[in-house]
Amino acid sequence: MAKQPKQLEVAFLGGVGEIGKNMTAVKFGDDIIIVDCGSTFPSMDDTPGIDLVIPDFSFIKANLEKIKGIFVTHGHEDHIGGIPYLLAECGNIPIYGSSLAIALIRHKLTEKKMDMPKMHVVKNGDVKKVGAFAVEFVSVTHSILGAFALSISYPGGVLFHTGDYKIDYTPVDGECIDLARIAEIGNKGVSLMLGESTNVEKKGTTISEKEVGVTLQRIIESHPDKRIIIATFASNVNRVQQIIRICEKVGRKVAFDGRSMVKISEIAKELGMLEYSDNTVVDIDDIKGIEPSRLCIISTGSQGEPMSALTRMANGEDRSVVIGDNDVVAISSQPIPGNEKAVYTLINNLYRRGAKVLYGSLEQLHVSGHACQDELKLMLTLVNPKYFIPVHGEYRHLKKHEELALSLGIAQENIKLADIGNRVAIKKKSIQFIDSVEAGEVYVDGNSNVDSGVLRDRKQLSSDGVMIALLTIDVDNRELTAIDILSRGVVFEEEFLEKLKVTIEDIFATSSYKDEKSRGGLKNNVKRKLERMILNKVKQRPMILPLLIEHSQNKAEDEEEGEEE
Amino acid sequence: MAKQPKQLEVAFLGGVGEIGKNMTAVKFGDDIIIVDCGSTFPSMDDTPGIDLVIPDFSFIKANLEKIKGIFVTHGHEDHIGGIPYLLAECGNIPIYGSSLAIALIRHKLTEKKMDMPKMHVVKNGDVKKVGAFAVEFVSVTHSILGAFALSISYPGGVLFHTGDYKIDYTPVDGECIDLARIAEIGNKGVSLMLGESTNVEKKGTTISEKEVGVTLQRIIESHPDKRIIIATFASNVNRVQQIIRICEKVGRKVAFDGRSMVKISEIAKELGMLEYSDNTVVDIDDIKGIEPSRLCIISTGSQGEPMSALTRMANGEDRSVVIGDNDVVAISSQPIPGNEKAVYTLINNLYRRGAKVLYGSLEQLHVSGHACQDELKLMLTLVNPKYFIPVHGEYRHLKKHEELALSLGIAQENIKLADIGNRVAIKKKSIQFIDSVEAGEVYVDGNSNVDSGVLRDRKQLSSDGVMIALLTIDVDNRELTAIDILSRGVVFEEEFLEKLKVTIEDIFATSSYKDEKSRGGLKNNVKRKLERMILNKVKQRPMILPLLIEHSQNKAEDEEEGEEE
Repeated sequence: MAKQPKQLEVAFLGGVGEIGKNMTAVKFGDDIIIVDCGSTFPSMDDTPGIDLVIPDFSFIKANLEKIKGIFVTHGHEDHIGGIPYLLAECGNIPIYGSSLAIALIRHKLTEKKMDMPKMHVVKNGDVKKVGAFAVEFVSVTHSILGAFALSISYPGGVLFHTGDYKIDYTPVDGECIDLARIAEIGNKGVSLMLGESTNVEKKGTTISEKEVGVTLQRIIESHPDKRIIIATFASNVNRVQQIIRICEKVGRKVAFDGRSMVKISEIAKELGMLEYSDNTVVDIDDIKGIEPSRLCIISTGSQGEPMSALTRMANGEDRSVVIGDNDVVAISSQPIPGNEKAVYTLINNLYRRGAKVLYGSLEQLHVSGHACQDELKLMLTLVNPKYFIPVHGEYRHLKKHEELALSLGIAQENIKLADIGNRVAIKKKSIQFIDSVEAGEVYVDGNSNVDSGVLRDRKQLSSDGVMIALLTIDVDNRELTAIDILSRGVVFEEEFLEKLKVTIEDIFATSSYKDEKSRGGLKNNVKRKLERMILNKVKQRPMILPLLIEHSQNKAEDEEEGEEE
Repeated sequence: MAKQPKQLEVAFLGGVGEIGKNMTAVKFGDDIIIVDCGSTFPSMDDTPGIDLVIPDFSFIKANLEKIKGIFVTHGHEDHIGGIPYLLAECGNIPIYGSSLAIALIRHKLTEKKMDMPKMHVVKNGDVKKVGAFAVEFVSVTHSILGAFALSISYPGGVLFHTGDYKIDYTPVDGECIDLARIAEIGNKGVSLMLGESTNVEKKGTTISEKEVGVTLQRIIESHPDKRIIIATFASNVNRVQQIIRICEKVGRKVAFDGRSMVKISEIAKELGMLEYSDNTVVDIDDIKGIEPSRLCIISTGSQGEPMSALTRMANGEDRSVVIGDNDVVAISSQPIPGNEKAVYTLINNLYRRGAKVLYGSLEQLHVSGHACQDELKLMLTLVNPKYFIPVHGEYRHLKKHEELALSLGIAQENIKLADIGNRVAIKKKSIQFIDSVEAGEVYVDGNSNVDSGVLRDRKQLSSDGVMIALLTIDVDNRELTAIDILSRGVVFEEEFLEKLKVTIEDIFATSSYKDEKSRGGLKNNVKRKLERMILNKVKQRPMILPLLIEHSQNKAEDEEEGEEE
């Protein structure tokens, strides 16, 4: 094996040029640690039928003997969702993270009936030494408990990875962001900072999570006769805790609806992060006996997800909750870009069932978990890094974060904007891109991965359907004995289909149908000619699959051979 | 023919419970007039491959002899986009509208090589008498010139349709909203008002179009060395006019890029709605010789539309404009819900090419053309209708508009929320729903209409692909001589395909393959069994098409028969 250079190298495997599936590999000599391994939800437009998108793990597989551990900043899907797939491909790698993050990963692996790797629960200030690295976990505030920035010491320097954060001076529970320690780390000298960029377009600072509690309390108190349903992210344990506290104060029972809401609340309760008296929470199946005005349902589905509890309610399909005009539904989140239509459809359907619906554009019902411009400035100022790479953002976010860093006096040549697969190395007096690695997106559909060729086919099928042209050929007499045309996702009149058949007859008559090669030519001709005729006729481009069925009078030998693309 | 009741009846054919494809039919006795006939752009998720959605015209076709005219409130696509399809189906119907709306309709019909119906250009205060109706056109301000509300007198009352509007006291050009006349109409007594609801969720009032001019002027003046590219809606002639005036002041040439920008600007110039000196505007193909700092390009594509000028630029595919770091691109619009991802991708790509990009979340670059709450209140107060039906909105908007009307003292029983296909009639002392009519969505794909079965097929094809199972059968010996499996949009390992083939053999062996009926059973069995096996194996549901190819040794007779769904 080649001798490994003794320098810090960082490979960006996800989360740059995109929001989602964050994954970074940090290498020094023969040691690599992975920071986060997330997944992202696909958009229907680009990736029809895909359930999940995860990073390409080629770089990890190629360097398996160097991998020392996965360091998880926090337990959101875009930071841990890829872990089961990584372990399935690469075997068990030790994992380090907060108690909540580890519990969520454990739950994922249990559901998939996978073996457990070594998992290490860490807390603020813990330092884990692995290979050339000493990784310190520094508490930050975010929209999930147990979130860390990572201060990664290596021979000759420190890499500071902010993780996802906001600066919440008055967090509901749990630790405050450890600004003092961050300042200390900054004062000692940080060579490279990776800083999250999600909210860099927003001026000022994010609002404290506590403010949402104030809004929710006002909503609950001002509807004493109504049943209250609040939809939010299951992982936002602090928000769930606030709702429960308000309910305990006003004497409402609480029921969780939605698989992840039930599960995460159970996990958080076990970890001591969610507190309530034993008679506060009732099972969603047992709400029948409870006066609606004495009940609050906390549910999933605030993003309009198709299978979620709130969507089921809005569609009249929920087992336990039937929405009516005695319901007030508060949607405690903002639509993530791409989810707007689903969320608005959800709201329309809830209204149609008679509910009063409170949502983002009408009320202050949600606060972001990500730092705005003034918080980003504070972080950059405290960490005061020599080199800076903005991460966790689409290109426009990375670019804005670069501008912000420039405005704080970081030199242009000390900032790099990375794409997925890029690698940087810290040289003696500079930071430089080195050769890129194999990286990108892997599409998970059901139990299998799907490549881009399959997606391309699906997109064509989706927009214009498929047409199968079956040519049955008597091999002995070189005669076309039947033509059948079958289509799905596209419809033609009988008359036009007859024209297509005549065309196929003509093509066959003039073709030198003979051997394997001429068969390919025949099919290509049919395909091309039909494509052109259909495009001219209806301006559509169905996928055309010509199939040759060849049979002989002498021996009952049939052959179909339709693949040539 | 049944005697028609002498009462006002309103049929909602589009634009209620949705934003887009507005169309209303107003009937009194034997006379019907149509207000607007719009189209809407489909979302990829629900309607793969569809180019355009238009209303179902069944009600119009069934009442053709009663139709007296199409009254167009203004020239936006969601008000005129369906007209060519309506005329193609129903023959030529006279059209009434502003000079700009009529010119845009004429252009559409010319492009489609269609005959021109009688078209009547109207202006503020004009009254057109058709059948039982007298329709007065009342100027309103909106994001396109030549926008009207309609005051429709019928025997015994007045229907007031607001059209789309905002209350802009300082419009850039053209007429102000004729509040005095609206008040007068209200004072005389309005029986029913249909009021647009698009911005009912927004408090206060919309900002004047002139404010965008201030922002654009600041942007242009503060980048004297850069080339400026401004993307906006081609139909917003006032905004284009403002940009041109600023450019003439600072000495920049203007070039239009994008088909609709070139076309609408040409039409507006001809109509005298767009003014500039002859040497201001240059052809986009002739910009090479012009110093970039002396040029401003006004382009389409502010919604990230795939084939638009700005998207071409962002993708490096524009014939005339190559984006670089000397460009400032201002996107003068807000993403319409559903377009967010496309717009952000556009912005990312422009940044990647080095441009400075200014857009909504960073600058005040756009104002809405729709009335906010305080304007809606003013309109309701001036018109002071007896009955009120909110239109032009999703259900949530209609509901909010109802709440707003209630807060102004309109009685609950005098407000109706309509769905597409609903009809209301004004009776002696009440407004009531009467029997609904056939109505809904028609999907246009290329040159043909597509039904929902085709869309369902496309969605399945799109999410999980298609598998064709070809069973070749020797009819004489009742023998399965070959099995071939072909798939697109889904991929399986050879080993699993072999298992599927063995399964098909087993099914055939135990089937009583004989006649037409047993063939159907055989195919259903193959379909169901394969579906189950594939679902278990990979959790996917490809569309499975079993095809039987039957041939006989005696006569070369083949039959394929694959349709049974």
